[in-house]
Amino acid sequence: MIEPIYYEDEKLYIVDQRKLPQTLKIVEINSVDEVVEAIKSLMVRGAPAIGITGAYGLVLGLKDWKGSENERFFKQLDTCYKLLLETRPTAVNLSWALNRLKRKASSLQEKPPGEIWEALLEEARNIHDEEKERCEKISLFGASLIPDGANIITHCNTGPLATGGLGTALGSIIIAHEEGKKVHVFVDETRPLLQGARLTAWELEQAGIPHTLITDSMAGFVMATQKVDLVIVGADRIAMNGDTANKIGTYNLAILARHHEIPFYVAAPLSTIDPNIENGNGIPIEFRKPDEVTHFNGKRVAHEKCKAISPAFDVTPSGLITAIITERGIYKFPYNFSKSEIDSYI
Amino acid sequence: MIEPIYYEDEKLYIVDQRKLPQTLKIVEINSVDEVVEAIKSLMVRGAPAIGITGAYGLVLGLKDWKGSENERFFKQLDTCYKLLLETRPTAVNLSWALNRLKRKASSLQEKPPGEIWEALLEEARNIHDEEKERCEKISLFGASLIPDGANIITHCNTGPLATGGLGTALGSIIIAHEEGKKVHVFVDETRPLLQGARLTAWELEQAGIPHTLITDSMAGFVMATQKVDLVIVGADRIAMNGDTANKIGTYNLAILARHHEIPFYVAAPLSTIDPNIENGNGIPIEFRKPDEVTHFNGKRVAHEKCKAISPAFDVTPSGLITAIITERGIYKFPYNFSKSEIDSYI
Repeated sequence: MIEPIYYEDEKLYIVDQRKLPQTLKIVEINSVDEVVEAIKSLMVRGAPAIGITGAYGLVLGLKDWKGSENERFFKQLDTCYKLLLETRPTAVNLSWALNRLKRKASSLQEKPPGEIWEALLEEARNIHDEEKERCEKISLFGASLIPDGANIITHCNTGPLATGGLGTALGSIIIAHEEGKKVHVFVDETRPLLQGARLTAWELEQAGIPHTLITDSMAGFVMATQKVDLVIVGADRIAMNGDTANKIGTYNLAILARHHEIPFYVAAPLSTIDPNIENGNGIPIEFRKPDEVTHFNGKRVAHEKCKAISPAFDVTPSGLITAIITERGIYKFPYNFSKSEIDSYI
Repeated sequence: MIEPIYYEDEKLYIVDQRKLPQTLKIVEINSVDEVVEAIKSLMVRGAPAIGITGAYGLVLGLKDWKGSENERFFKQLDTCYKLLLETRPTAVNLSWALNRLKRKASSLQEKPPGEIWEALLEEARNIHDEEKERCEKISLFGASLIPDGANIITHCNTGPLATGGLGTALGSIIIAHEEGKKVHVFVDETRPLLQGARLTAWELEQAGIPHTLITDSMAGFVMATQKVDLVIVGADRIAMNGDTANKIGTYNLAILARHHEIPFYVAAPLSTIDPNIENGNGIPIEFRKPDEVTHFNGKRVAHEKCKAISPAFDVTPSGLITAIITERGIYKFPYNFSKSEIDSYI
C-alpha cells in the first residue's frame, strides 16, 4: 500500500490527491507556507490526513528556529499555528493536532528550542502512528457491521489517502474484504470535487474490491432498484449529540437511506467529536469558491454570470445515523458523548 | 426568445444544446439519419422537443419519396418510423408524435404520396403548435402554485429548449416571473450531463430570473438551511397511477422534499401520461454509456478500468408527488388518470 504522507530528513512528502487517478505524484514539501498551500488547494484532504499534515507542517515551520532564542521560537510557533489553523475551518482534527503540539511545546517551555523541536517532531509522529492505529481499530469495528455479500454505498473519500492510515469508512470495507467477505461498493462520485470518482474508486481498485461509480444523483435509484445493505461514510466533525458534518451530499444520502430503511453508518476517530459543540448548529461550514460548481477542470460549464454556492460540508442530524463507529467501539443512536470521556480519550 | 426548433423549406433547424451556454449554434438538418443522430447525441433533448423533432424527422425522411409509388412511400415511412422510435426509449412523446403521423398517413392511404406528405408536414406543424399551446397552459397553472417571493428548486431542463414552447416546470417559473412575482431558483446542475448547469441556468439568465447553481448533492443542504417553498420538475413519462419517470436525480429530490415537507410538483403535458402503463414498474429506463459518469465534460475522471452505470431516468412514486400540473389543470395525489380521458385528450 502507498504511504500517502510521510516525513523524512526535515521534509514532508505528500501524494498530490488532485492528480489522482491519472498520475501518482509525490510532492516534496519544505516549508509551512507550502503546507498551508497543500491543505488549501486540496493537494492533501480528509480530516485525519489534514491533522497529520498540519502537525508536520508546524514542525517544518520551526525547523529553522531550532537554534534561535526561546521567545522567538514560540513567536514563530504562534505564527505557524495560526497560518495552519486557518486553512480549513470544518475538520476538527486539524485544530486538535495543532493544539496537541502547542501543549507539548508549552510543557517544555524552559527547554532549548532544539529540544522542543525534537519533541514536537516526535509528537507529530505519534499523532500519525496513533491515527493509523485508530484507523485499524475503527475499521475492525466497522467491518463487523458489514455482512458477507453486502452491497454498500459510500460518499467522498475515507481511505488511506484521507487518513494516513487504512481509512475509516473505506477502511471498514477494506477489512471486510480482507476477512473474505464478498462486498461490492457503489461509489458516489461526490461533486463538486469528485473525490469519490477520483480517489475512492482508485483506492478500491488498488484493494481489489469490486465497485461501480455512480453520480450522487443516482443513489436513490440504486437504493430503489438494487439490494443495498448499508451506507457508510466518514466525518469531518461530530457534535456531542452525534450530529455529523461530512462532505456535502452526505445529508442527502442519509435521508435517502432512511427513506429506504437502509442502515446509515458514520466511521470516524473520537478526535472528530468536538467536545465544545453541543449540536450540529454549532459546526461552522466552509463555503468554497463558486468556481468549483460553475467550472470543471478549469473549464466553465455554466454561463458567464452564473451565481453558485459551494458549501463543502453539510450536517446530518444524529437521528438519521444508525451508528457511529469509533476506535473505541460502536455507538448507537441516541448519542450522548460525555465531555469527560471524550477529553480523557483524545 | 430563441426558437429552438423550426422547420423551413424542407429543412429542420435545431439549436445544438450540447454547445450551450458557450455557443448558440443552430444546426441545419436535412435527413432522417441526421435527426436520429441529433436525438441520440442529445443535440436536441427534452421529452416534448424530442416528440416535435421526431415528427419533423419523419417528414424529412419522406421528402424524397413524394413522387414515388404509394407502396414504396409507406415502406419508407415504416423504415423512418422505426429508426426514429429507437433513438430514446423512455420519453413517451416521441412514440406519441410518430404514431400520430402514422395514423394520419394511414387515413390517407389511397391519396398520392405528395398529398400525404403535405398532410404529414401539416400534422408535424400542428404537433409543434399544440405543444407550444400546451406549454402556455401548463405554465399558467404551474405559476398559480408559485407564491410571490418563492425560493424554488428545479432539476434538469424543462424550458423552451426542452419543449419547443415556453417550457413546463421552467415555463411555470417564467410565467410566475412575468406575473411580477419575485422568485429565485436553485438550479440542480443535473449530473451526469449537466443540463441544469448548462441549459437551465442559461434560460433563466435569458429570462432575467435570479438563480443560483448548486450540485445535485447540495439540495438537502439548501432545504435544511434556506426557506425553500417548492420543488418543480418536468417528466419524461407518467404512468396511469402518477408514478413519474424523469431525469436521474428527480427521485432523490422528491424524497428530500418529502423529508423537509416541501411541496414537490411535476409539470408535464398530458401526452407524457402513458395510457398503457399502470405504474412506474412498467416504465423502461434508458441506460446510457458509462462514460457519461466516468468522464466529466469529455475528460476522464475515474481510473481506467472503473465500472459505472448511467441510468438516464429514475421513477418517482406518485405518493411523493404533491401535484401533477397539466394543460388541463392541476391533479393532486392520489392520481387515477382514466384511460378514456387520456385517450380522448391526447
